[in-house]
Amino acid sequence: CNTMQLLNSKTRVLSGSRTSAAVKAVRVAQPSRRNVVHVAAAVALDFNTKVFNKELAKFADTEEYIVRGGRDKYPLLKDAFKGIKKIGVIGWGSQAPAQAQNLRDSISEAGLDITVAIGLRPDSPSWAEAEACNFSKAKGTLGEVFDVIADSDLVVLLISDGAQAKLYPRVLAAMKPGATLGLSHGFLLGVMRNDGVDFRKDINVVLVAPKGMGPSVRRLYEQGKSVNGAGINCSFAIHQDATGNAADVAIGWAIAVGAPFAFPTTLESEYKSDIYGERCVLLGAVHGIVEALFRRYTRQGLSDEEAFKQSVECITGPVSRTISTKGMLAVYESFDAEGKKIFEQAYSLSYKPALDICFEIYEDVASGNEIRSVVQAVSRFDRFPMGKIDQTYMWKVGQRVRAQRDESKIPLNPFTAGVYVATMMATVEVLREKGHPFSEICNESIIEAVDSLNPYMHARGVAFMVDNCSYTARLGSRKWAPRFDYIIEQQAFVAVDAGTPTDAEVMREFLAHPVHRALETCSSMRPSVDISVGGDSSSVGVGAGAARTEFRSTAAKV
Amino acid sequence: CNTMQLLNSKTRVLSGSRTSAAVKAVRVAQPSRRNVVHVAAAVALDFNTKVFNKELAKFADTEEYIVRGGRDKYPLLKDAFKGIKKIGVIGWGSQAPAQAQNLRDSISEAGLDITVAIGLRPDSPSWAEAEACNFSKAKGTLGEVFDVIADSDLVVLLISDGAQAKLYPRVLAAMKPGATLGLSHGFLLGVMRNDGVDFRKDINVVLVAPKGMGPSVRRLYEQGKSVNGAGINCSFAIHQDATGNAADVAIGWAIAVGAPFAFPTTLESEYKSDIYGERCVLLGAVHGIVEALFRRYTRQGLSDEEAFKQSVECITGPVSRTISTKGMLAVYESFDAEGKKIFEQAYSLSYKPALDICFEIYEDVASGNEIRSVVQAVSRFDRFPMGKIDQTYMWKVGQRVRAQRDESKIPLNPFTAGVYVATMMATVEVLREKGHPFSEICNESIIEAVDSLNPYMHARGVAFMVDNCSYTARLGSRKWAPRFDYIIEQQAFVAVDAGTPTDAEVMREFLAHPVHRALETCSSMRPSVDISVGGDSSSVGVGAGAARTEFRSTAAKV
Repeated sequence: CNTMQLLNSKTRVLSGSRTSAAVKAVRVAQPSRRNVVHVAAAVALDFNTKVFNKELAKFADTEEYIVRGGRDKYPLLKDAFKGIKKIGVIGWGSQAPAQAQNLRDSISEAGLDITVAIGLRPDSPSWAEAEACNFSKAKGTLGEVFDVIADSDLVVLLISDGAQAKLYPRVLAAMKPGATLGLSHGFLLGVMRNDGVDFRKDINVVLVAPKGMGPSVRRLYEQGKSVNGAGINCSFAIHQDATGNAADVAIGWAIAVGAPFAFPTTLESEYKSDIYGERCVLLGAVHGIVEALFRRYTRQGLSDEEAFKQSVECITGPVSRTISTKGMLAVYESFDAEGKKIFEQAYSLSYKPALDICFEIYEDVASGNEIRSVVQAVSRFDRFPMGKIDQTYMWKVGQRVRAQRDESKIPLNPFTAGVYVATMMATVEVLREKGHPFSEICNESIIEAVDSLNPYMHARGVAFMVDNCSYTARLGSRKWAPRFDYIIEQQAFVAVDAGTPTDAEVMREFLAHPVHRALETCSSMRPSVDISVGGDSSSVGVGAGAARTEFRSTAAKV
Repeated sequence: CNTMQLLNSKTRVLSGSRTSAAVKAVRVAQPSRRNVVHVAAAVALDFNTKVFNKELAKFADTEEYIVRGGRDKYPLLKDAFKGIKKIGVIGWGSQAPAQAQNLRDSISEAGLDITVAIGLRPDSPSWAEAEACNFSKAKGTLGEVFDVIADSDLVVLLISDGAQAKLYPRVLAAMKPGATLGLSHGFLLGVMRNDGVDFRKDINVVLVAPKGMGPSVRRLYEQGKSVNGAGINCSFAIHQDATGNAADVAIGWAIAVGAPFAFPTTLESEYKSDIYGERCVLLGAVHGIVEALFRRYTRQGLSDEEAFKQSVECITGPVSRTISTKGMLAVYESFDAEGKKIFEQAYSLSYKPALDICFEIYEDVASGNEIRSVVQAVSRFDRFPMGKIDQTYMWKVGQRVRAQRDESKIPLNPFTAGVYVATMMATVEVLREKGHPFSEICNESIIEAVDSLNPYMHARGVAFMVDNCSYTARLGSRKWAPRFDYIIEQQAFVAVDAGTPTDAEVMREFLAHPVHRALETCSSMRPSVDISVGGDSSSVGVGAGAARTEFRSTAAKV
């Protein structure tokens, strides 16, 4: 049940899936009208805020509401968090250290009397780390999970997906009536649907999903103290509004963790696009295609080091930076005539195979299969813990290449660029066909890749990045990376080597795709500061107090 | 609802999953008693035959019922098929041409007045092929699908899994009350469980699943006309017995298609082990590990041709033949001291990674995920038809190697053998832990590999074999082969290259595993004739009238 408010419409939007269809219909039918809060048709992702200012932003041919954040909005937190005395942040994984510290700093900045407390299981190895970040039992800011939940007005549940799947009945039972359950991922909704159960009706259920890893959320927030506008954008959703002010709690939370902009979505739309995106170009696809490219280039006679540069280094370096600052078309346009021809062939012959796997992933996510698989895998961890994947031959080559890297000499290989951009466009296109809003499409397919994950991969390697994500992301990447690898080799490379010409229609669709204009709008909302990440021997942006990327084994525990 | 009869027990077995537990308990608890039809405890896979002779066979420490087939049992078909005037074989894929022709020949041999008719959709391209095999509309042995179904007393439904998923409501509705629905795969039960529906109660539902592809079923049956005992063994199941003689219909069907031996199972146990097995060592795993091994050997400096011989040729040739005739231990024992050491390290470091993926596959099959994915993939075929996978670099090398093959010079590589046997044992062990009977374990993990699929792979290549299986098998192999590839490289090869010693405990478990003794029993029931398959330029065993392996696009149609 989706409680996004229908302010100015007679149309009743009943369910998540129908919401998507409605959004899509609206996006197609609705003429552009700016600065109009009370537009009749843009209803499906509307929301009922009494505190914040919502604006309509144009993404390509469609309009979507957004909320502007930033440090100048902190005075509004008082009204947004009305009635909230305690915020309990549960867990200490990737997001929790970042969000808890940001929330605490923002609340302090706003001069509010709200306690931010961490909830951990009594034997958690994270207890000392939380204390090192100045949370303490003595001050009432660090306690046992269910004690903290029972005492909080906003419960920010940041334990792993697997732990949520196991513990949600106890979590829900422990909450105060009228309190707000805050999620940073809609995964739990997917689990509960598989289980055939629903949230209790006397609580709010909202989501704030920062569009980056915990470490980025913390680092950019800290930089935002001197540069307003620095921070990680968030999506937010109001799934259940028991108190009538759930939207303001959610938006307040988003702004307090440092979002320069916040984009509405639904829990369903978020979990589908998120679980899907990390299996596609964000993690799984990029891993798979660089394995295939590296193998191809060494087979063609390049040295290991050169093959690594022409594949991995090229993508995580210049290709990613060009997309981040100038968009996907700029990658294509940066090549000379010969380079363009190579890009065109690689792009047009890789696009459909990549799209094939992207559709499969989306439908496995939407049907509940992927969530069911994750829950099953987590339940096998005692017997089959996930091993590292970054010790293979290729990633040892990568360590050597990074150690001697001259950033200015990383090649921009048109074949590599064509395969990568095709995979990114395939990721985009499935979300578009499935009716996701463009703010979400751009974030889950492009921005999170080029502004958050790829910079980490560039610093530490793709496989290292996979090894240091959440279980859900790691499991998904390990599952789907090899599929992209195989299909790109079996279909795209075979077609290229058989001399199959460029598919002109596929190239035309690429050049004219509305996502390029939508991405321009998103770029105007881009944080004003880039993330900086330490390399192989550095812990900058990776350490514990700075909100580690290293994901601790808290599966099925808290 | 499982109607395997409980002849001599007070214990009521209610469901498939509880059946498995019960079987397991029985297998553990039950002392060996031969030649006793009315043993009290061996009830779960008992069945109620009035026509055939059931025997208890000892597989390792457990006993299971079996039925002996062969041409000398044809006189019993009259009683087994009592009341059956017409058998409708629906579809013309891999199994249908073989089963229909075998049934027709056996019925003729038995002198029975039963018509065997093929049901096809009116615009099916298979119409001419069926006519070439002497089925004709004029003689009433070839007709439209639902006409044939409505007129048949035994409906042998051999359309593709995807088509079954789409059409089963119409198929069930068209059947006569008291008729028997015959399946060769329990897949449909999995689909109906996902859909939350059940079979109508006024029909029999039985299964006969030949343990080999259609072409083998036909070729060995033909050879059986001169050599009694030639034929493909079958498993059979009685899922629903509305008429009281369902078991005799099923066993009669098994014997009439040429089974030298028939083994009881349940629809659930069959579809789980079958869908699982083809994703593991039968197809998916063998493809994945040879890709990893070929890559490894070329990286170590072997020529492409030599690397192909040391990986693919070794497995589909001498390793497979040794297992077929002498078992898995014989592979190990065939090496000298140095070879044994290499085998031990490769085996013991590959076993757990392979087991990890095998468990994941089993649980994805058991939870309905895998069937849901297949049904979804088939619904995308119009937009994303499955491409061939056998045109990549490695499989072109394979064509050259096969063209110059000297069978006597194919190497028996102890590293390759260790990885392959580990994958086979992992496939075995999951089925054992999940409570499948040993007759099924041996067939779905070992015998079908070494006696049916590997000989085809040896003749035409592994990827060719994948490209020519059923959609369910192809989709599964394409999905899981890359997973085995990656995990073997990421964990097993990394461990080997790091000098990790042999895991003595894993080797001990291998040497002492009960499956070796169970396989000896199975080998005593092995068909007396080997399958012969033509090579790349031959159509022996592959052509249409001989029951092609080439699987025609009949998805979601009939």
